[in-house]
Amino acid sequence: MPAQLRAATCAMACAAALLAAAAAQAQTPAVAQDFQALEAAQNLANGAPGPRAVPSKSIPVPGDVDGATQALIAAPYRTPAWDADPADAAAWHALVDKLAQAALPGLAKARAALGVTLEPVMLGGVKGFVLTPREVPEAHRGQVIYNIHGGGYVYGPGESGTAEAMLMAAIGGYKVVAVDYRMPPDAPYPAAMDDADAGYRAVIADTDPKKVAVVGTSTGGGMTLALMLRLKAEGVALPGAIAPGTPWADLTETGDTYKTNEWVDNVLVSYSGYLSHAAQLYAAGHDLKDPQLSPIYGDFHGLPPTILTSGTRDLFLSNIVRTQQKLREAGVVQELQVYEGLSHAQYLFDPAAPVTRDVFGEITRFLDGHLAR
Amino acid sequence: MPAQLRAATCAMACAAALLAAAAAQAQTPAVAQDFQALEAAQNLANGAPGPRAVPSKSIPVPGDVDGATQALIAAPYRTPAWDADPADAAAWHALVDKLAQAALPGLAKARAALGVTLEPVMLGGVKGFVLTPREVPEAHRGQVIYNIHGGGYVYGPGESGTAEAMLMAAIGGYKVVAVDYRMPPDAPYPAAMDDADAGYRAVIADTDPKKVAVVGTSTGGGMTLALMLRLKAEGVALPGAIAPGTPWADLTETGDTYKTNEWVDNVLVSYSGYLSHAAQLYAAGHDLKDPQLSPIYGDFHGLPPTILTSGTRDLFLSNIVRTQQKLREAGVVQELQVYEGLSHAQYLFDPAAPVTRDVFGEITRFLDGHLAR
Repeated sequence: MPAQLRAATCAMACAAALLAAAAAQAQTPAVAQDFQALEAAQNLANGAPGPRAVPSKSIPVPGDVDGATQALIAAPYRTPAWDADPADAAAWHALVDKLAQAALPGLAKARAALGVTLEPVMLGGVKGFVLTPREVPEAHRGQVIYNIHGGGYVYGPGESGTAEAMLMAAIGGYKVVAVDYRMPPDAPYPAAMDDADAGYRAVIADTDPKKVAVVGTSTGGGMTLALMLRLKAEGVALPGAIAPGTPWADLTETGDTYKTNEWVDNVLVSYSGYLSHAAQLYAAGHDLKDPQLSPIYGDFHGLPPTILTSGTRDLFLSNIVRTQQKLREAGVVQELQVYEGLSHAQYLFDPAAPVTRDVFGEITRFLDGHLAR
Repeated sequence: MPAQLRAATCAMACAAALLAAAAAQAQTPAVAQDFQALEAAQNLANGAPGPRAVPSKSIPVPGDVDGATQALIAAPYRTPAWDADPADAAAWHALVDKLAQAALPGLAKARAALGVTLEPVMLGGVKGFVLTPREVPEAHRGQVIYNIHGGGYVYGPGESGTAEAMLMAAIGGYKVVAVDYRMPPDAPYPAAMDDADAGYRAVIADTDPKKVAVVGTSTGGGMTLALMLRLKAEGVALPGAIAPGTPWADLTETGDTYKTNEWVDNVLVSYSGYLSHAAQLYAAGHDLKDPQLSPIYGDFHGLPPTILTSGTRDLFLSNIVRTQQKLREAGVVQELQVYEGLSHAQYLFDPAAPVTRDVFGEITRFLDGHLAR
């Protein structure tokens, strides 16, 4: 049989088997009572090399994690955040402002509970914040965390983007400088990277770069990696260590968990939601595979020691393991921590959750081993 | 509304939404052409706290990995291995022998290509093999890898279980001692652990334990962890480092990826396949949560430096991250490497694949940092 015909035959057989599997599932939506029927349909649908056919599922909340983690895992999809598709700049502003306003009271309350103060600063012409814990332990005096917030290049303006900075200050016991970079629709690429670069230069103007760590989650993690590539090209001193948390290392939908964890991750849910729109809005015509937009396509040689963080349900897990792969190949010191059941960046969502303390405790342990004192 | 009624209402709504999502998918089996319909159904099905409703999917083979990795990811389900349910001891023997015989020619060919020799030995009364590479580099002379093979406590008897031992010898450049432990149906728990213990004692009878690493994948990884708990209890010296690859740390179906990666992993596919039968056959009435059967329930304090390996499609990924969590809590030095797109233990399947060299290269780098010379 010619290869093309064989592929077409397989595709038809697979489609038929998918329908059979869906039907088998449909009859028993809660629990697969008839495992043998599903097994037979699945064996048929996955009996030749090719795409993986997976039936519909109802995935329980794990019973072996603490209650706060169970609540994060059980939480409904975040609408309208995940699937936003604003029609124009005004609609983007309205949505971003609404989400930002909604976040502020919780952040103020958390800062008060954690004993963290926040004050606006200017960083070489760029807006930012300094977050200070009640006490900086002896070992961290003189060290600075430079934080780049996440939010798909659109969410998290101003104070609304300071959750991770607050947690690094409170749990790690650090002075944290957070950059409030410009974002689209008003300021597409390269404004965000220009601001991140200017902010970093302002920090190292009066702090030894070896005492500085750059920390950022999601888009902030991708920007952290892109900033390292830019600093290398500019000949600017790199920081002592970096902590890209679940970095958006690839703005194209490349990476296996974009599909395996689609509809499983309850934060990002699907690349076809706001992520794809935000990527285009930010890139504004630039190639999404430019390493300044998708740092996975850059050269990682010479990057500082790196700690990566993700979760088993994270839509971006492949972004993280592909980043780990490139760091390995480049001989960079790296660590990866993956957390049971967590979707994208959920370690930022509940300051009181044990997993939040665990994640920032691990980052602090790592930085203690790599930052100068 | 009372909580119970609210839950029931939600369950009905979720079931209805699942059916709607399945129907939406059924109309467009290859690609979700009508994303908005699927989005709406999914938002409805995941609009309240609870289990995650996931529609049926066709997951493409990733385009960003090398050809050998693509072939591993695209491979069909492994029948009859994954879904075996032999009726009695004779049927188990017939299946296990058939799979073992099928593996031998490929292993002999791979040993020849890699320049590894294999000879049977006795280890304190227990059967085993010594695998020797063409050359042991200066840095590894005097060091020994003690390997415990995988196979769900039923597969991999004799030479058929020596793939990992061969790869550690060839890629790492080590003398490897592999234990051919007894298995059910003839010898249920604790025979396998008794043999693993006896074999380890035989190895350290003439090698400094600090120059020994215990390496095992899947069931061999779970046995590696259980062996550490047993050695601690027995007061026997622990090895210098361990490398449990995707360890079966929990024989109960506990761990989120038992569900999120069900039908996605093309090696193990589902706990409801042979795994559940093998667990019962091995335990033979013992509690599956006994730390000698499911080491995740043991005390990890004092374990040697540990490198863990898994893949994004691995049904056991949660076994690995739960193990990492317990190692973190116990203050054990640990590293985790996760590989893009890999299902369970696929780094053992193709000796020529770049990912195989990568995995065993990383383990060797880790051991170089922790074994005595």
